Amino acid sequence: MPLFQGLSAFPITPTDSRGRVDTDSLGLLLERLHAAGVNSIGLLGSTGGYMYLTREERRRAIAAAVRSVGGGTPLIVGVGALRTDEAENLARDAEAEGADALLLAPVSYTPLTEEEVYQHFSAVAQATDLPLCVYNNPGTTHFTFSNALLERLAAVANIKAVKMPLPRDLDFKGELERLGRGAPCHFAIGYSGDWGAADALLSGADAWYSVVGGLLPEPALKLVRAAQAGDAIEVRRIDSHFQPLWRLFKEFGSIRVMYAAVSVLSLCEVVPPRPILPLTDADHRRVAEALDVLLGLEGGRSS
Amino acid sequence: MPLFQGLSAFPITPTDSRGRVDTDSLGLLLERLHAAGVNSIGLLGSTGGYMYLTREERRRAIAAAVRSVGGGTPLIVGVGALRTDEAENLARDAEAEGADALLLAPVSYTPLTEEEVYQHFSAVAQATDLPLCVYNNPGTTHFTFSNALLERLAAVANIKAVKMPLPRDLDFKGELERLGRGAPCHFAIGYSGDWGAADALLSGADAWYSVVGGLLPEPALKLVRAAQAGDAIEVRRIDSHFQPLWRLFKEFGSIRVMYAAVSVLSLCEVVPPRPILPLTDADHRRVAEALDVLLGLEGGRSS
Repeated sequence: MPLFQGLSAFPITPTDSRGRVDTDSLGLLLERLHAAGVNSIGLLGSTGGYMYLTREERRRAIAAAVRSVGGGTPLIVGVGALRTDEAENLARDAEAEGADALLLAPVSYTPLTEEEVYQHFSAVAQATDLPLCVYNNPGTTHFTFSNALLERLAAVANIKAVKMPLPRDLDFKGELERLGRGAPCHFAIGYSGDWGAADALLSGADAWYSVVGGLLPEPALKLVRAAQAGDAIEVRRIDSHFQPLWRLFKEFGSIRVMYAAVSVLSLCEVVPPRPILPLTDADHRRVAEALDVLLGLEGGRSS
Repeated sequence: MPLFQGLSAFPITPTDSRGRVDTDSLGLLLERLHAAGVNSIGLLGSTGGYMYLTREERRRAIAAAVRSVGGGTPLIVGVGALRTDEAENLARDAEAEGADALLLAPVSYTPLTEEEVYQHFSAVAQATDLPLCVYNNPGTTHFTFSNALLERLAAVANIKAVKMPLPRDLDFKGELERLGRGAPCHFAIGYSGDWGAADALLSGADAWYSVVGGLLPEPALKLVRAAQAGDAIEVRRIDSHFQPLWRLFKEFGSIRVMYAAVSVLSLCEVVPPRPILPLTDADHRRVAEALDVLLGLEGGRSS
C-alpha cells in the first residue's frame, strides 16, 4: 500500500519525567504495531508528544524506531517546531536516521499568516528528499488552513498528503471533493479525530491517522478493512465498540486517555510530560472499562 | 514605585537569523528604556520572542540586560515553556542572572486543564524566590483563565500580579472589581493590548504591559502619567496620536510592527524569527507614517 493510505498508527513516546525517551519501551510499542500490520506509524505526532521533546531526544526516538521496525512498517515522523530553521534541522535528522516520511504542523506562538505558513512548509519540504504530510491540527497549532493554502502547498515538490481534522459539519464527502479538486491527483487526504474515522473512511478518505491505532492496532485495522471493503454495517458495528473510548477521548483529550491505557494494559511505566497530568485512579478505571468493551469486540462478518 | 505598577516596557530581543541574541543591540534598546524612566522592563515577553529562543540564548539575554540596566530598572523576565521542568529551569536561570521578577504564560500544545495550569504555576513559583506575574495571553497560549483559577493562583506564595488581555466587553472597571475582590489586596492587576491601555489605566489598572513602550517609552510614559493624574482629556489626546500605530498593531500583530519600527528608526539590524516574516517595504512606509504621527505628539497640558 502506498504511503499516506490506510491505518497510520500514532503511539505515545515513553519517556521519564525529565523527557528522556525510553527507547526499549518505544521499541516494544512499535513492534506491536508492526506485528499487527498497520500501514504506517506516525512517530512523534501530537500523541507522541513531539513538542515536549528536545531535538536530541527526538533523534533518539527515530533511531530506536528504525532499529525496531525500519524497513518493515513505514515511519512518518513529526518534525514540527516553532522556528523554521529548527523544523528544517529536525527534518534532516529524521532523514539521516532513516525515516520514510515527514509530518509537519504549523506550530505557532505568535499567530501566523498564510504566507508565513506557506514559506515555512516550503522551506522544510526542501530541506530533505522525503515526502511530507501537512499536519492540519488547529486544536493544537491554532492555525487554520484555507483551502487555497492547502492547494498551494499540494503543488510544492515533496508535499504529498494532508492530515485533516474532522470537518465541523462532518460533511466528509463535500470536503474530500473540494480538496481533491484543487490538488494533484496523487495528493492523499486523510483524517485524524478518531471518533470521526468511520465516517471519514466510508466517505473515501485515504487514511486514518489514528491515536487508538497507536496502541490497539487490531480493532482499528478491522474498522479500516471493513471500510475499504465498503461494508458500512460492519464498520458501524465495530465503531460501536469504540464508543466508550471515544467518549473518554472527548472528555479528557486522547493523549491523557492513551497514557492511562498503556498503564491499564501494563505495557510500560509511563507518565505524560508535565504540565500534562495523569488521569485519576477513578478515571483509570473508566479507561479500563472502555478497553474491556473494545477488546470484547468479536470478529463479526468481516473477520 | 512597586513592581508590577505603571509602565512595563516590552522590547523585542534582537537576534541573528539563527536565533543568537545580539546582546549589544539589546543593551542599547534597554538603555533607552532606562533613560526614559519606564517603571519596569518586560524582558523576553511575547514581543521579545521568548518562545523562539533556546534556554542558553534566553540566559545570555538576561545577563546582557542585567549588565545594561540591572539595579536601575526592574527586569521582569518571561520564563514560559511547554514543559514544567523547563520553565522551572528558566526561572532558576533568571534568578541566577539577576532578574527582579518572573512572567509566566501557560504555553500550550496539548490544550491544558485548569488543574494542570495551577500545578504548573505552583511549581515554577516555588522554583525561585522571585515574585511572579501570571501572563494571561490567550491569543498566544490558547489557554483561558477562569476567575476562580486566577484567585487560586493569587493565593500562591510569590505569585503577585497578573497581566491580563483586554476584556472582550472592554468593561475594565467591572473586571478589576471582580478580580480584586477574589485576590489578596497586594495582588497587582495590569493589562496588555496597547490600544486598550488608555481605558485600562483610566479605570484603575495597576500597570500597562506595553509593546510600544518597549521601543518608544516617552509617549507611553506621557499617557501613563496623564492617567495616573486622572486627566482623562489629556489621556485621550495622547492616545489619539497612537491611533495609526494601533491600527497597524491590529492589522499585522504588534510584534511585526515593532520589528518594522526598529528598522524604520535605524536602531539596529533585526529580523523576526522565521516563520514570522518582516513586513513589506510598502508596509514599512505605513509604519514610518504612524511613527511620524506619534513622534509629532506635543507635550500638551501635562508635560
